[in-house]
Amino acid sequence: MRVARPAVEPVPASGAWTEGDPLGGRRFVDVAVDRPLALEAGGHLRHVRIAYETWGELDAEAGNAILVCHALTGDSHVHGPSGPGHPTPGWWQELVGPGLAIDTDRWFVVCANVLGGCQGSTGPASVNPATGRPYGSRFPIVTVRDMVRTQAAVADALGIGRWLSVVGGSMGGMQVLEWGITYPHRVRSLIPVAANAEASAQQIALQSIGRHTVRLDARWRGGDYYDAEPGDGPHRGLAVARQLAQVTYRSDEVLAQRFGRRVADDAPEADISLWQRFEVERYLQYHGEKLARRFDANAYLAITKAMDLHDVGRGRGGRETAMARIRVPVLSVGIDSDTLYPPYQQHEIARLLRLAGTPVQEVELHSPHGHDAFLIEIDQLGPPVAEFLAAVEKAIP
Amino acid sequence: MRVARPAVEPVPASGAWTEGDPLGGRRFVDVAVDRPLALEAGGHLRHVRIAYETWGELDAEAGNAILVCHALTGDSHVHGPSGPGHPTPGWWQELVGPGLAIDTDRWFVVCANVLGGCQGSTGPASVNPATGRPYGSRFPIVTVRDMVRTQAAVADALGIGRWLSVVGGSMGGMQVLEWGITYPHRVRSLIPVAANAEASAQQIALQSIGRHTVRLDARWRGGDYYDAEPGDGPHRGLAVARQLAQVTYRSDEVLAQRFGRRVADDAPEADISLWQRFEVERYLQYHGEKLARRFDANAYLAITKAMDLHDVGRGRGGRETAMARIRVPVLSVGIDSDTLYPPYQQHEIARLLRLAGTPVQEVELHSPHGHDAFLIEIDQLGPPVAEFLAAVEKAIP
Repeated sequence: MRVARPAVEPVPASGAWTEGDPLGGRRFVDVAVDRPLALEAGGHLRHVRIAYETWGELDAEAGNAILVCHALTGDSHVHGPSGPGHPTPGWWQELVGPGLAIDTDRWFVVCANVLGGCQGSTGPASVNPATGRPYGSRFPIVTVRDMVRTQAAVADALGIGRWLSVVGGSMGGMQVLEWGITYPHRVRSLIPVAANAEASAQQIALQSIGRHTVRLDARWRGGDYYDAEPGDGPHRGLAVARQLAQVTYRSDEVLAQRFGRRVADDAPEADISLWQRFEVERYLQYHGEKLARRFDANAYLAITKAMDLHDVGRGRGGRETAMARIRVPVLSVGIDSDTLYPPYQQHEIARLLRLAGTPVQEVELHSPHGHDAFLIEIDQLGPPVAEFLAAVEKAIP
Repeated sequence: MRVARPAVEPVPASGAWTEGDPLGGRRFVDVAVDRPLALEAGGHLRHVRIAYETWGELDAEAGNAILVCHALTGDSHVHGPSGPGHPTPGWWQELVGPGLAIDTDRWFVVCANVLGGCQGSTGPASVNPATGRPYGSRFPIVTVRDMVRTQAAVADALGIGRWLSVVGGSMGGMQVLEWGITYPHRVRSLIPVAANAEASAQQIALQSIGRHTVRLDARWRGGDYYDAEPGDGPHRGLAVARQLAQVTYRSDEVLAQRFGRRVADDAPEADISLWQRFEVERYLQYHGEKLARRFDANAYLAITKAMDLHDVGRGRGGRETAMARIRVPVLSVGIDSDTLYPPYQQHEIARLLRLAGTPVQEVELHSPHGHDAFLIEIDQLGPPVAEFLAAVEKAIP
């Protein structure tokens, strides 16, 4: 008797949220309605929409608002279950929620999907108003500064003049710094976690390889794959790019402890192939495909490029001058085992701030988990964040 | 006036050395002439040839022979210029040569291209005697132990009963350990450099991703691409796999110092694309394509798989029992900045040997260069190697 294998849905050509999909907790702000949004790298975008979610209640003075900024493959869904419209549960929901460190009973929390993303904000999978078809290969280069500019439009729409704090890890932390530099008068404090003041050569190198991996997939079709049938899109290339990222988000120690040389259950001793044997390989394949089902290959390219271009000093007379614009208290959080965003980058942020006389509190998470510790070690991250926010609130005149 | 760009030769479908190419310094030993070579993972190979080179003179007692074992993309050409038959200059020629630490005026040095390789030894690009066509997808899984068994046949053919030493870095070091364990009576000493007793989960993960990158290239054609025209083979996939490896062979520090955020000369400020901007990206692309011109994609798959399967303890009652078979002096060399083969792996080799009472001398290279330091820091590597070899020679009864 043959046992039927469970049917596996083919991976859609793009995992992007599109108009008509369930809204979930999303709301939208239209940006660049009257005139195109001029992008830092020279391109333009018309009819930009930014998707965002909120938790808690904005107080009468609009003084209790906190902006949370997401990382590469995150989205606006910081808190809440997965369900229609939200492929994943909240990515920071041990940190952000009622009674938690970023307490939604007390603060009004906002998180927006970044420009260039694929969970509701304008990105490569969105319809290009000039053609009526998805941008695809025509999507322009965006930068972290462009992301932050569109978030400012969200703040305007919500009537938030000044954030109590802007908080984020990894690429979220890049946005945090750009908020403090671009809009120093619109923040009361900043919490960059496992971030950098500028992308390093190694960070650029690894992301560049991820982009080339997507490009290798013939089904990426130069970026214009949105008409492809499920299973015929660039999901394999995106999945391998994710596999690479996943290794760099973790640590040698954790991979050794969790997987070691354990052979996967479905790889019997007598069946050694080039493509499967070890549990760690199966783990990577699982995570690669999982991302491909909920993400968009072009968004992956656009956002990683934005991260590579991140350099707070560009066009501002250098990093020192740029960072000197930040005039509010900063809680700077690094991770001791992070080899992708090594602690020295976080120390450099603190050093640049101190040069300008800005008050900085440094915290280092002690964790075997590498870069992903900013999503994992909430027991360590929560208390200093809560204390810092309480002190910021107390200092409001 | 338009300036003609220099013509660039398309990349051949395989960079493998094949019959009829210039021999260079190669000679050959035929293995498995009478009966097939039974491989550790279950496959068989008939008519195996191993290509090797030698330097110096074998003495009358055949007592002055040293075997050098190469790493993933190395070959038999340890010493000498590039030229017909040899795409690269000697990969360890500051260490191995007349008057150098491994002194070819004194020792008879042998280096063989590994089984599964592509520079003269039987590998996926070789003609399968069963079909008259290259093995391609039919090439069986080989292991480091299989490589070492075929090297023993080279020793037999040269009349070398016992090596004065077996020396190698990275995958070469894996072969060194397997020599000591499989043929304890055929070595007088061992020098493993930047190696491991078993591949770690992170090492497996990174190499698995490299293999998936090759596979993503539609021109890999399931492994049967040898009929493809130049430019129509899997060189893009192989090049991206090499880009990834290259990052892990170096260090964050060196990439930062050498490239930082420098923009490539051919990437003007106003022309930011997804595919080019930073010098580090151009560097990786250069090295990726360079490898693709001299290597074979299937050999890359076969050899990286052999490295992943490396585990001295497999089928031998564990690592302690296996390593206890080594009964000769060992010089164990690690690299402080190596994050791919971290120093703890080299310390583990030494620990296992000491458990069994085997004399071990540990040396750690202090270098910013990461894993590749075993090819670079010859000023540090040479003196302890020379002293160790002199002591080994002196101890010969």
